[in-house]
Amino acid sequence: MKEFRVVGKGIERPDALDKAMGKTRYVGDMNLPGMLYAGIFYSSLPHANIITINKHKSLEVPGVKAVLTAADIPGRNLVPLMKEDWPFLAENKIIYAGQAIALIVAETKDDLEKARSLICVDYEELDCVMAPEESLKPGAPQINPLGNLIAHYKVYSGDIDKGFSFADVVVQGVYETGYQEHAYLESQAFLAVPRQEGFLTVYGSMQCPYYVQNAVSTLLGLPKNKIQIIQAPTGGAFGGKEDFPSLFGGLAALAAQKTGKPVQLVLDRRDDIIMTSKRHPSRSYYRTGAKNDGTLTACEIKVYLDPGAYATLTPAVLWRCAVHCFGPYRIPHLKVDAYAGATNKVPCGAFRGFGTPKVIFAMERQMDKLARELNMDPLILREINCLKTGDTTATGQFLEWSVGLSETIEKARQLSAWDEKRKLFPSTTGTKKTGIGCSTFLYGVGLGAAGRKIDKAEARIQVKPDGSVLFAVGTTDMGQGMQTVLTQIVAEGLGGIAPETVHMLPVDSTRVGDSGPTVASRATYTSGNALLLCCKKILEKMKGCASSLFDITPDSIQAQNGFFYGISGLDPDNKTKHKKKLTSFSDLAEQCCNKHIPLSGHAVFDSPPTSWKQDTGQGKAYVTYSYATQIAEVEVDTETGEIELKDVWAVHDVGKAINPTQCLAQIEGGVLQGVGYALMEFIDLDEKGRINNPSFSTYIIPTSLDAPRIHPMLVEAAYPEGPYGAKGFGETPLMGMAGCIANAVENATGLDITKIPILPENILPRLSQK
Amino acid sequence: MKEFRVVGKGIERPDALDKAMGKTRYVGDMNLPGMLYAGIFYSSLPHANIITINKHKSLEVPGVKAVLTAADIPGRNLVPLMKEDWPFLAENKIIYAGQAIALIVAETKDDLEKARSLICVDYEELDCVMAPEESLKPGAPQINPLGNLIAHYKVYSGDIDKGFSFADVVVQGVYETGYQEHAYLESQAFLAVPRQEGFLTVYGSMQCPYYVQNAVSTLLGLPKNKIQIIQAPTGGAFGGKEDFPSLFGGLAALAAQKTGKPVQLVLDRRDDIIMTSKRHPSRSYYRTGAKNDGTLTACEIKVYLDPGAYATLTPAVLWRCAVHCFGPYRIPHLKVDAYAGATNKVPCGAFRGFGTPKVIFAMERQMDKLARELNMDPLILREINCLKTGDTTATGQFLEWSVGLSETIEKARQLSAWDEKRKLFPSTTGTKKTGIGCSTFLYGVGLGAAGRKIDKAEARIQVKPDGSVLFAVGTTDMGQGMQTVLTQIVAEGLGGIAPETVHMLPVDSTRVGDSGPTVASRATYTSGNALLLCCKKILEKMKGCASSLFDITPDSIQAQNGFFYGISGLDPDNKTKHKKKLTSFSDLAEQCCNKHIPLSGHAVFDSPPTSWKQDTGQGKAYVTYSYATQIAEVEVDTETGEIELKDVWAVHDVGKAINPTQCLAQIEGGVLQGVGYALMEFIDLDEKGRINNPSFSTYIIPTSLDAPRIHPMLVEAAYPEGPYGAKGFGETPLMGMAGCIANAVENATGLDITKIPILPENILPRLSQK
Repeated sequence: MKEFRVVGKGIERPDALDKAMGKTRYVGDMNLPGMLYAGIFYSSLPHANIITINKHKSLEVPGVKAVLTAADIPGRNLVPLMKEDWPFLAENKIIYAGQAIALIVAETKDDLEKARSLICVDYEELDCVMAPEESLKPGAPQINPLGNLIAHYKVYSGDIDKGFSFADVVVQGVYETGYQEHAYLESQAFLAVPRQEGFLTVYGSMQCPYYVQNAVSTLLGLPKNKIQIIQAPTGGAFGGKEDFPSLFGGLAALAAQKTGKPVQLVLDRRDDIIMTSKRHPSRSYYRTGAKNDGTLTACEIKVYLDPGAYATLTPAVLWRCAVHCFGPYRIPHLKVDAYAGATNKVPCGAFRGFGTPKVIFAMERQMDKLARELNMDPLILREINCLKTGDTTATGQFLEWSVGLSETIEKARQLSAWDEKRKLFPSTTGTKKTGIGCSTFLYGVGLGAAGRKIDKAEARIQVKPDGSVLFAVGTTDMGQGMQTVLTQIVAEGLGGIAPETVHMLPVDSTRVGDSGPTVASRATYTSGNALLLCCKKILEKMKGCASSLFDITPDSIQAQNGFFYGISGLDPDNKTKHKKKLTSFSDLAEQCCNKHIPLSGHAVFDSPPTSWKQDTGQGKAYVTYSYATQIAEVEVDTETGEIELKDVWAVHDVGKAINPTQCLAQIEGGVLQGVGYALMEFIDLDEKGRINNPSFSTYIIPTSLDAPRIHPMLVEAAYPEGPYGAKGFGETPLMGMAGCIANAVENATGLDITKIPILPENILPRLSQK
Repeated sequence: MKEFRVVGKGIERPDALDKAMGKTRYVGDMNLPGMLYAGIFYSSLPHANIITINKHKSLEVPGVKAVLTAADIPGRNLVPLMKEDWPFLAENKIIYAGQAIALIVAETKDDLEKARSLICVDYEELDCVMAPEESLKPGAPQINPLGNLIAHYKVYSGDIDKGFSFADVVVQGVYETGYQEHAYLESQAFLAVPRQEGFLTVYGSMQCPYYVQNAVSTLLGLPKNKIQIIQAPTGGAFGGKEDFPSLFGGLAALAAQKTGKPVQLVLDRRDDIIMTSKRHPSRSYYRTGAKNDGTLTACEIKVYLDPGAYATLTPAVLWRCAVHCFGPYRIPHLKVDAYAGATNKVPCGAFRGFGTPKVIFAMERQMDKLARELNMDPLILREINCLKTGDTTATGQFLEWSVGLSETIEKARQLSAWDEKRKLFPSTTGTKKTGIGCSTFLYGVGLGAAGRKIDKAEARIQVKPDGSVLFAVGTTDMGQGMQTVLTQIVAEGLGGIAPETVHMLPVDSTRVGDSGPTVASRATYTSGNALLLCCKKILEKMKGCASSLFDITPDSIQAQNGFFYGISGLDPDNKTKHKKKLTSFSDLAEQCCNKHIPLSGHAVFDSPPTSWKQDTGQGKAYVTYSYATQIAEVEVDTETGEIELKDVWAVHDVGKAINPTQCLAQIEGGVLQGVGYALMEFIDLDEKGRINNPSFSTYIIPTSLDAPRIHPMLVEAAYPEGPYGAKGFGETPLMGMAGCIANAVENATGLDITKIPILPENILPRLSQK
């Protein structure tokens, strides 16, 4: 195997020091002369016709520069995401409590708040619907302007009835999962700045600059070459900065265009929680059959996601949900129907795992139920059924390579002392019960067949005459560490130069073309590959230059450790190739500059083909998959219902860890976010779909005190089409947590856990009955 | 000839409206939170050792954040221009009055001025030298640390003695020219902003961002990938923002790095005039021989330029001077020696014309003297000797194409009614005498053989999915109109799309690689060609896409007027090709986006080869030349010495006028700047080389009231290697003015004019003697 100089090393994040020192300037830290502040007036009702918007008093507040409504929009009043259903500012109807109605622009934040409190809207209230299964019934009130059925996806393979007829055992269950708030540290934040010649720059905390560019272009009716979107340092996103930035970035731009001034739009936490997307709540119906030897024969699944009022990214979330809800298993007969039916609630959207954590929870509960019925060790049941290289998935995709699932199961088993604990725990006595549970799962890397149209990435590299390097990509770092990983890929790709000599430019829509959204754990894979294509072009040019300088064929030149070597055939004495140092990377860069050989590389990585048949749900859903096994050990206080999560073992097949330190940290973060999802996080809605707990003192997320001991481990089943073998995996560490924790709670208590979050108050009554 | 849709049209400047409305934000208009102000303390003596720099009191001024001297420089204290002689901040010696010694950084401009007045330097004064001919004498005090001879260039061809032996007539003269101040509207201005991760952005009013990048890198010891240079809107330059921005950009960056804050360094007019470069004063010795039929046989020239204390760009200026001093004529026997000898005065540097206006003045005076001796019409004498296509220059360069000189002579003659006036004017009576004079000259486009190493240009174009276009280049618009011309070239190059859909990004060192300086009338030619290479790449991709969409070979697709057409062979009926509209540029751009065909073009234009032999001054000096004839009509009041310039006819061969309106405006501006040089502008130095008139109330430049009637005209002798045939010509309109005005004054008064500016007080005594 090739020796790497930079890849595979846990180098320090280039952004770490500034962040640790408080020097990083987020949008909220930016300030420009004459800058104005914008804020949004939103609906307090879930479903109503707007009779009048009275902005008169609001405009009288000194310092208020504008109060803008739908009538003030020069372009199209539709946020350009997956469907054309969602207005930037409500026109004559609102369909959820929290929907934007007016945009206020003022000199100070105080003026802004005063003006906001003086806007008065007359509504005619309408009947509302709060559950997707209700909204899809005939005769339900129409909520979404394009119809209540936001999407329906199927995955059908084999013959489901036959499949169940082969089964010796059938288990079923109904599973419910709740909302999850992204709880990024930095709220939604944008700064729009009018420039010369009708040009407009929008800085924002966001994942998808090209979505925001589309949004601004649509809203303002401006050509795209007049709009520059720059990603500001972004303090967390988790999917929550994929969809709503199109709304807020657009509105900030509108305010800037209308006033001719820089305008900052930063949401406070309350507004952010009330207005923006969350993880979709779900209810799913599972029926799973297996033979006595544990072999799965059939699985029938019906999933309902609650998308809230507008589609945002729900079709994509639902598709991924449909493709992941049957787990990483060989299932010959499968029938999946996944639905999203609009409700009068805040729109749900992208969230780390993108439709999968809810169904992994369900499927993994099913697997444990099956194991119990079969009296089989749950890990063994999974090992029997899990996908291996050479298998075909239930959507008909042949897995040619890089299936490290078995290895994650085996490693997790050993690490956690699973076998001993499964034997030991049932015999614990007392009021505190210990249990251990597992989950195994996969994650399709990248946008997959449903996102094929936008699944490309551009990159540019510029080598300066002193050998220092700049690069630009179109995917973003929102804290997940992309910048570090791509820096390493570039340093390695240019022949193992020092990563400190490589600098990533801020993501800027004018630097590279549309590179798709930064979601779906695709940044390392797509931008990494695009950068490697650039590196190749640059090395070729440098070798060409070295070739003429040192009179040696380009093929005989190797770049290594920041130097170029001439390799001459076999050395007769020691039977090894003879290697002669020709020049350093930086000296050769200078020579190239002098010879007018431009060391610029530009490339587009076009994701390999995928395929999908909408009617059967068959095809090559994703280019590749990441795999993982997670094991949780819990202690349940049967007197209080409190669950103490003690240990988590998380073994992840990442293809190749470009930066192992970051991979391990990514696991720790994901695990903890999964702990919140499984055990704590709960959006409290009133009967009108209004959020009762829009703050971090009432919406509880895990702190370090809630953290278990986390034992992360990596498996590297190299993906030949990934950069240095890497697959994406940023989302996976969260995904299996609800499943393994629920299974551990069952192991400890015998309770069939069918609903998350598993709150003490929910399980205590059942515990007392035991 | 090909029909153009955009090229050749006088479209409006994209930057015009913002500038006219006062919306353009120059560096002095920029303001950032926490921004500090920097200013420079400079020497008041011309030549001295520095004993101590006392900054103690200065540092006590409230609001003062730093007072920096040479000791505070982390990198190398040498401005990286042509020679390593010039420190950013003086170390222990100063060699001109105005040399930077200390950099003060303060919260307000008032604090800054107070602190500056409190710096105290103890000097040991040294003998100074004020004339280059003195400084080159043996035993002269050493001024420049690398020696007083800054440069010496020769152009020798034929046998000079033989040449004179063939002559029937020999004329000689000694010519003196004075300083010229650039008098750009906006003074030198920089803003340096520390960013994240050790990255630094420097905004500046400048011509050469890559020079400034070198300077910042050198001064701070930073790799180039950590330095971003962005050209701010630049309010005039004329060469004066080629050299000194390296000093000021460097110092602004130093202040920002030391304080960690954004720092603005904007010179006031006084400091700007005192500290920065001017056009070199010169003295030249000419001897010219011709036969009775007017044919030139020999020319012997010795030129001394006064470069001031440091080399800055003097070697390049002197080289161009040496290559242009014998005019646009066939001269079989030539001997040129050009010298620059350091003096204890402000360094001279680049200025529109770059070493040529002084020697064109001299050479054109010689030609008129010769005409007088030969009793020949001066225009006829020039016509007899002027270079034509197929000729070889005195440096041995064969002129293959694009020599429009004769045509400019003929057009100028007709336009000005030359023949009639030359007959009529000598007979005018009274105290006001009228005269008419001409000059013909050439200008080598681009950097020529001496600048070959840096004579390349990069460009990038990005076509957005909606068909709107962004482009980036590395050459700058300082008011001369490059942006407009390049916008037209891109619009034409992409198949005649509307220029309003094309947007140029600010010049930014992180966007394209080093594209050399924006000087030598090279921007249209080099960046234009680089952009056309990009356009070609993009059109190829678009045609490839259209080819598969419409099932037609790419070769049969033509881009025209913003559409793509399919061309099918000969139409049997009407004998013309059959043309079918396939799709629009914008629709095809969207299709390419959907098909993941990136519409990005990047290219480097590498200037064609030139050659030069240093010892003989022979070779292909420049890739091509622009030519011009200028004629001036004056009225001289023999009682006051006042010269009224009444009319100027300026006929310029520009190759191809991309934007004729701008070309004509460029002529008007250049002519007026030439009027200042010939008649008004005068730097008043005291005996220590200190400038007595550092303001626009004492240094007089022409106003609109001083403007003659200007009659510009274009000749288009297409240059096949230029974009659409264009050559550069931005500098030429100034270049011949001193010559034709001086010749007109002689025609009116009979005075042999040997010195400019031709001030009334200088000619009045001689007029009275007449």
